[in-house]
Order: sequence, then C-alpha cells, then structure tokens
Amino acid sequence: MDKIDKLRQQMKEKAVDLIALAPGANLNWLLGVNPHADERPLIFLLTQTGLGFLMPELEAESARQQTDIRFYTWSDATGPTSALDNLLTDLKGFASRSIVIDETMRADHAALIQDKVLNANRAFTASTIGKLRMIKDKSEQNILRENANQADTAMQNALSEIQSGMTEDAVASVIQSSFSEQGALPQFSIVASGPNSAFPHHQTGSRVLNDGDVVVIDLGGKFKGYASDITRMAILGSPPGDYKMIHQIVEDAVCAALEAAKPGEVAKNVDKAARDVITKAGFGQYFIHRTGHGLGSEIHEPPYITATSDTILEPGMVFSIEPGIYIPGKFGIRLEEIVILNDKGPEVLSKLSRKENILNT
Amino acid sequence: MDKIDKLRQQMKEKAVDLIALAPGANLNWLLGVNPHADERPLIFLLTQTGLGFLMPELEAESARQQTDIRFYTWSDATGPTSALDNLLTDLKGFASRSIVIDETMRADHAALIQDKVLNANRAFTASTIGKLRMIKDKSEQNILRENANQADTAMQNALSEIQSGMTEDAVASVIQSSFSEQGALPQFSIVASGPNSAFPHHQTGSRVLNDGDVVVIDLGGKFKGYASDITRMAILGSPPGDYKMIHQIVEDAVCAALEAAKPGEVAKNVDKAARDVITKAGFGQYFIHRTGHGLGSEIHEPPYITATSDTILEPGMVFSIEPGIYIPGKFGIRLEEIVILNDKGPEVLSKLSRKENILNT
Repeated sequence: MDKIDKLRQQMKEKAVDLIALAPGANLNWLLGVNPHADERPLIFLLTQTGLGFLMPELEAESARQQTDIRFYTWSDATGPTSALDNLLTDLKGFASRSIVIDETMRADHAALIQDKVLNANRAFTASTIGKLRMIKDKSEQNILRENANQADTAMQNALSEIQSGMTEDAVASVIQSSFSEQGALPQFSIVASGPNSAFPHHQTGSRVLNDGDVVVIDLGGKFKGYASDITRMAILGSPPGDYKMIHQIVEDAVCAALEAAKPGEVAKNVDKAARDVITKAGFGQYFIHRTGHGLGSEIHEPPYITATSDTILEPGMVFSIEPGIYIPGKFGIRLEEIVILNDKGPEVLSKLSRKENILNT
Repeated sequence: MDKIDKLRQQMKEKAVDLIALAPGANLNWLLGVNPHADERPLIFLLTQTGLGFLMPELEAESARQQTDIRFYTWSDATGPTSALDNLLTDLKGFASRSIVIDETMRADHAALIQDKVLNANRAFTASTIGKLRMIKDKSEQNILRENANQADTAMQNALSEIQSGMTEDAVASVIQSSFSEQGALPQFSIVASGPNSAFPHHQTGSRVLNDGDVVVIDLGGKFKGYASDITRMAILGSPPGDYKMIHQIVEDAVCAALEAAKPGEVAKNVDKAARDVITKAGFGQYFIHRTGHGLGSEIHEPPYITATSDTILEPGMVFSIEPGIYIPGKFGIRLEEIVILNDKGPEVLSKLSRKENILNT
C-alpha cells in the first residue's frame, strides 16, 4: 500500500475530510516533492477521492519535474484565490467538516484554507501523517544509521580540532565542513562554551574558547532526506570542581531512560526515568526541557518524550534521549543519543562514548 | 519616537487591539530580539498598554540576554496554555476585537492565539509593521548599500571562477564562501545552467556546466540583519542564436521599470513598464512572475511590484527590479537590480554592468 493510501485510511479512521500540506517534511515524506517555498502560497490538498496542488506560476515548470499531480496555477498578478476555489470545487473541499493543516504552514497560507471552510473542525497532522511518520520502516532505519555514523564523524572531527583560542564559530565551521565532505547537508551546530553551555539552544557565536571551558557540542546534518542529531561534551584542560560529579548524573539519567524505553511503555515514563535520577541528585530545577524528541525527516518530530506524553512506544520509533543540567552563569551538560526502538529495547545509533572528553590545552 | 510607539500609533489608526509576532524578521526589526525558533510556541504580544513574551522555559535564559520584556514561561511538561492565558489576561487580550498575526508564524502557533479570540477580526502585518518596515531610514539604507557591495563581490567571484566542467553546486560554493569571507551569512545562491535557467527558482544541483550554457546567477547574503539580492547572466562560450536579442529585451525592460519608478507612482505601473516591453517584443507569456519585491531584513517583503499592486511608491522604499524571460526546455534570462527610491527616482545599488558575461571556455 502506498503512502497516499495509508494516509487516506488514517483520514477515514479519524473522519478527516481534507488535508492541506505545505512544502517541507510532511510533503516530502508523502510525495517526495520538495518545491521552493516562499511567501507565495504553494499548498497540496488531499481528500478521499481527489488531490491537487495550488501552485505559483513561476514554480510550476520546476515542480513538474517532481510530480504528475494536477496543478492549479496562479500568477503574481491574479493571486491565488480563484485557483484555490477551482481546486476546492474539484475536490468537493468546500463541504469539509473536518480538516487537517500542516502545522509548519505559514499562518497566512493556512488562513487561505481555513477561511474557505469556516465551520470545519481544524486539527494538525499529529494523528494522521504524524502517526504514520513516527514508525520508520527498515529502509528509513538504515538511512538513519548511516546518518548517525556521519554525525559521529563530524563530532570526532570537532573533538580533534577544538582548542583554546578558537571561536565557537570556528568549531561550528569544522562540523559543517565535515558534513559537507561526507555529502550531507549541515543542519545545525551548537557550540556552547563556558557559561554559554548553560543555554540549551545557545546561538553559536564569536566567543573565544578558554582553558577550563566546558563545551556542549550538539550537531546534526541531513542525508537522503533524513536527519542526524548527537550531543557530546568537551572540556578544555581542567574541568570545574563539580563537573565530573554532574556529568555522571547526566550519564546515569541517560542510562535510566534507555532502560525504561521499551515497546508498550508510555513516553512519559521514559522522561520520568531520566528526570528522577536528576531530581534525586538535587538538580531537578536545572533540567529545563523534555528528555527527547522523535527524529526522521525533521530534526524534531513525534514522538516527543515529555513528562506528560501518553504516546505508547512502538517498535520502529526513532527518538532522542538527551537529559541535561544547566546551571545559569556556570555551565551546562547535555548528553544525547538517538535510538531506534526494536522489539526488545532501544538500539543506540552512535558508536561514540558519552564520557567527558577532557582535552589537553 | 521608538518603533514600539510607532507601531502602537499604526495599531490605533487601524483599530488593531493585539499584535502577535513570531521569531523572525518582524520581531527582529521591532525589538532586535532573535530567539531560537522551533516547534515550541515563542510568541511576542503587544497591545496599546502592555506587552510580553510567551516563552519556552529552555529558551528563557538565552533570550533574557537580548531583552528585559516580561516572559510568561512554560515548560515542555505543562505546555503553553496556562502561560498564554496569564499573558492574555494581563494584556486584557481576551477582549480583542481585531488582531494582527505575523504571517510567517507557524499555523499551529497562530491557532493558539486565534482560538483564544475567536470573534476577533484577523489580519496580517501588511498594514501595520509591514507599512513601517517598507520605509527604510538612512542607517538602514547605508547597510543595504554595504550589502549590495558584498553581493557585487560575490557575483564577481562567481563570474571569475565559473567554467565548463564545474557543477552548479561548485559555483554556489564559491558564492557562499565569498559571503562568509566578507563576514556575511550566505542566504541563497541560485545557479541555474542550460535548460535549468528556465526555472526562475531552480534548485541548484549537480548538473555539470557545458560549453554554450546560459547561466542565471541569483545570489544574496545577510549582514547586520539586512539582505542583499542580485541576478546577472553568464554564458559559457558561444550563446544560443537568439540569446543576445532576448537579453537586450530584458535589459530594456529593466530600464523601462527604472524609468517608471518614481515617488507617487503606483507599484503596478512599474510592473507594467517592464511587462509592456517584453509583451511588445512577443515574449509576454514567458515573463511568469512579478517585476519585483521589497528588500530589507527579509529577502522578500513589501512593497511587491506586481501587475495589480496599488501601493504608492514613497522615498525610502527599497525593492528589486527583475524582469525575466523563461523559455521552457531552452533557457531563461533574468536581470535584477536592487534600488533605493529617492526623491527624484531610483538609486541602483549594484555597480556591476548588466551586460551578458560571455566567458571563454
């Protein structure tokens, strides 16, 4: 059964009449179509019996190389309204009682659709495409293993080059070059040094690395349409006095979450396993995010491993385990693994140790 | 008067009670705040008397380095609902009759706000922030001039390196390195060769450049928070027989639009000036996009120079003039200038000739 059929079955089960997708991960997963996205509405619509694209005229020839699905083309002069009306008429979309909108769609594009079906219930993709995308098949799992290997290489390159006197940006460049050389697209490279390591999503910048710095290195790329993601720690010279003790707590939290992650378990119990370790050690207030997120064609996607998620874990799910402790003004520590959930438990994709990398300066 | 005051005045004039902004160009323009954006709702709300951020807990410490505005913080465990309720209560936002949403906000984040004020009129930023952002002050104009100079350098580097046997991707790398070396962030580099040049937004790829290829090079970077954008043509060896004739038509269309662009003129007349030249030459059906777009902190922003835009041009507006002719299966030609509209007419920012760059192979 192809993905469109599977999605239509989900739509039937959830009584969804119409799905609207924007350029991005959902559309690429469903159709392998990845058109240029800008402020011009480009929207794919799907019902039980029909489908079509609202398509800006200047993108049509290029998008046609990727799909044979019918285009309802509009020009910069006329705007999208009448093409959208024609598409909705052909799809009997005006009668929709329940619609699903791609959560990543721009608000103005989503409004075009919503304003046409004002009385319809509106949901996002979590219970339809999101549910399908959560379970990775064997070929997707193999790509994710390859990607994890590339991320390991990028991490090793960063760890071998990093030293006092470099800027965070320079370390990020090493990471980006490593992905590029492996044929992957660099996606993100957080290099958070010294007190910056206490910001989970630090914006990597011009800070110069110093002796004694704790450095969070969180990196990922894209290859064959799928993502990678890993976090490891580096310490330049002698770590702060309490560093090793806190690193061990985060390591224990990773192990506890890996132990808890089994098919049939509820996602929130995996979060609890990690969080309990950190809370019992007295650092609960400094673990300021969820334990993990799904990974696939997007860097963050379902399932989310939060303290309140009732998602039941199933074989084929792929997600991160990444507890952290962030002490403002001092330093932060995060260790992140990506796992594929197999029948018996999690398969950790990275081959790299999670130990502190204490580097000579 | 600071930007918040100016925006509140616009809100008063347009009877807008509440504005909601996402991380991105609008928020950066208004507050100089540029937080990490992901699937977690991070939204800035503004009314006549109040303001505040809905803020994911893990971003708070980092965002606090950029602003003193009050945060309504939520955690991955609890979700954003109750923090948003508190923010809307403090801002008396539940009583809003008219709201403006950042058009670039994700659909699921916009829905959080819209679902709280279901009976309010909803608009996007065009008549409030969009209107303010359209007029660039002297310091913004100077940054845009600097940026145009960087783009010229990147274009010259590409033109000096491009040759038969290179891939499109390799030419794009030259462009990206040039921006990086100048301290700018590479934003986009369309290298559309041979038949690919007929796709206005070609996705630069692994095609190898050949003798006789027409190549569209459209590039831009970001520096000091503002964008650059320029398009020039390169031809490897002997151009196709009708190339020079069509290049001259596009050049004449650029000149006609530059002639038409004056303060007080309506934007659609600038589009008409360019389009008439191309239509009269018999190529109207191949000019498949608008004549231009505004340029500022975003690569595309108001004013849009389309066949139907009634926007009246004013001194301080900055926009592109970029007619093109795209013949499917053969080749495409686009020439793009960025202009600052001064009292007497347009100031073209690039110093580069628009002539065909016929390169030895």
